[in-house]
Amino acid sequence: MTTPGTTRIDDLPIRDELRGQSPYGAPQLDVPVRLNTNENPYPLPEPLVRRIAERVAEAARTLNRYPDRDAVELRTELAKYLTRTAGHEVTAANVWAANGSNEVLQQLLQAFGGPGRTAMGFEPSYSMHALISRGTGTGWVSGPRAADFTIDVAAARAAIAEVRPHVVFVTSPNNPTGTAVSAETVLALYEAAQAARPSLVVVDEAYGEFSHHPSLLPLIEGRPNLVVSRTMSKAFGAAGLRLGYLAADPAVVDAVQLVRLPYHLSAVTQATALAALEHTDTLLQYVEQLKAERDRLVAELRAAGCEVVDSDANFVQFGRFGSSHDAWRALLDKGVLVRDNGIPGWLRVTAGTPEENDAFLDAVRALMKENKQA
Amino acid sequence: MTTPGTTRIDDLPIRDELRGQSPYGAPQLDVPVRLNTNENPYPLPEPLVRRIAERVAEAARTLNRYPDRDAVELRTELAKYLTRTAGHEVTAANVWAANGSNEVLQQLLQAFGGPGRTAMGFEPSYSMHALISRGTGTGWVSGPRAADFTIDVAAARAAIAEVRPHVVFVTSPNNPTGTAVSAETVLALYEAAQAARPSLVVVDEAYGEFSHHPSLLPLIEGRPNLVVSRTMSKAFGAAGLRLGYLAADPAVVDAVQLVRLPYHLSAVTQATALAALEHTDTLLQYVEQLKAERDRLVAELRAAGCEVVDSDANFVQFGRFGSSHDAWRALLDKGVLVRDNGIPGWLRVTAGTPEENDAFLDAVRALMKENKQA
Repeated sequence: MTTPGTTRIDDLPIRDELRGQSPYGAPQLDVPVRLNTNENPYPLPEPLVRRIAERVAEAARTLNRYPDRDAVELRTELAKYLTRTAGHEVTAANVWAANGSNEVLQQLLQAFGGPGRTAMGFEPSYSMHALISRGTGTGWVSGPRAADFTIDVAAARAAIAEVRPHVVFVTSPNNPTGTAVSAETVLALYEAAQAARPSLVVVDEAYGEFSHHPSLLPLIEGRPNLVVSRTMSKAFGAAGLRLGYLAADPAVVDAVQLVRLPYHLSAVTQATALAALEHTDTLLQYVEQLKAERDRLVAELRAAGCEVVDSDANFVQFGRFGSSHDAWRALLDKGVLVRDNGIPGWLRVTAGTPEENDAFLDAVRALMKENKQA
Repeated sequence: MTTPGTTRIDDLPIRDELRGQSPYGAPQLDVPVRLNTNENPYPLPEPLVRRIAERVAEAARTLNRYPDRDAVELRTELAKYLTRTAGHEVTAANVWAANGSNEVLQQLLQAFGGPGRTAMGFEPSYSMHALISRGTGTGWVSGPRAADFTIDVAAARAAIAEVRPHVVFVTSPNNPTGTAVSAETVLALYEAAQAARPSLVVVDEAYGEFSHHPSLLPLIEGRPNLVVSRTMSKAFGAAGLRLGYLAADPAVVDAVQLVRLPYHLSAVTQATALAALEHTDTLLQYVEQLKAERDRLVAELRAAGCEVVDSDANFVQFGRFGSSHDAWRALLDKGVLVRDNGIPGWLRVTAGTPEENDAFLDAVRALMKENKQA
């Protein structure tokens, strides 16, 4: 038997830049109220569970065969969903899907970033943009964000002109701040990026369905270097499914097929996603409930004396605390797990069910009272 | 609506080395007898299909939550399977799983290869080794193979000493030739590789269950830089599932967790794989049938006048033809799709059902007769 523990990672011939690193990931703690990973709190409705079982059984009957390498049926249905909800008509030729938007972004970076190239995002933002860039050998430059967590267009344009990145990430609504980015800002950044060099601009709309504003999808029209990425993890309540997708010019979809691992998307994933898409209307009702709860969280947190960043996502960034770690720990002690994204003074809470949000708000109110007394 | 077809890939700011390339993948043609992608011809038995539906339904009830990021239950069951069938006791700490062995290999290359590093394989071999190396920015060097498609240890050692690769691939049984590699050869290559520099040796056993020889898994004992990769695509009849895995020192498992995308393996994939592992004994009976059919193909092809490479896989490399493309086309015209892997004079056929193999053998006999008359 192989004895564990005798060899350490750093004894192996791993890449130098990985030495001493730890894997990415939020702590998976067993806490009554878990509001730390922006999951949708509503389990899939039972009729959808049954439909998933049906479609997966159907797929399992030919599981000995490779899946549809190009996932045409799934991309067709995703295109219909976008056409119906995101204000712009697209077809399967505009859409690509992979195992989570992380894999979509990885494929984009393999094709448009990589060794000798540079990607840029406006931080704080989704930390995987930097991590996937590094994982694909792409250089990473952290661009500026204003004190209120919006993107200052003049500062961002100047940074783009200086860095001349090959890939630019714009996250809207932004994670972890919840901040939406206007179409005008995206267009200004796109033009600045193209003026610096031909480059890919990736608009990460993982939380797009929760926004007060319409999708930025229509911006792909006439802009072959602009990509919108999406996920079924949040709005479709399917974080466990790992289904991300993008919409762009068909040439971008052709380009990612040069780097995607063949048959990357399993037949069971395709079948499950197709079942979920059949139940879009039901799932979007949950989104409406979550938007209302998100707005309630913003209002109640402000009433409790917190600073709160305007949110267009299914989560809210709130503060400010002398030590975000101490505040995170105090809330955990009260049975509520939120996220410390490493932004000094701030924490992020996911909109849960009304009951979960009540428990969270009670914990925050108690914390604010303790802090005042201290 | 976005007009397709106006922008081409090469109009986009893609990486220079991707310009003019085409995506990897066998043609997916609608032919009566498809023996071109080494799929298992036996559909999963209906009790297993029902069990998959059950386990997936169970997983779907918490699909709003992220999956177990570390897939501990699945890795535990894979370890039990290896312990039982591969002659060496391993635990979950030794095992890692991903979306197909392609993703396992990609993660290994991200951690142990990458920009400024070099990988090496002995070609002809599984062409994805070179493609995934390039996709991760790893240099690729094609090492030598003898005329009979075995690895000439002296020549291979010399090549390793000269190239000093960071990652060495040894495919056993080899694809597309079917050639098994002995434990002695693997050890000699491992020692040569370590003498050149600390480096990772990856033994790709995707077809290991079909071999006349025992698994090379026991070689991981005491060799932290040796990895064995496996897949459920072939022996488990689950190409559509995309479940690959590796076994190695626990430190290697820790290392890939530095580069894996978080939550890379969906809850439905984990549930489906766990269901399939419950039915291991039934599925391994199909493997025994396929091994007998593979041996029959070798014998009958030789009787028909073909040259045939000894095979330990679920496929057979046969020839020789003046033009492998013409022979491939002639067999296709007779309703049988085999694989032209670009090795002059040779074609590869997957062992199918007895009926499919009969149809293939009839087509080959007819082709050999035509060739003799021509």
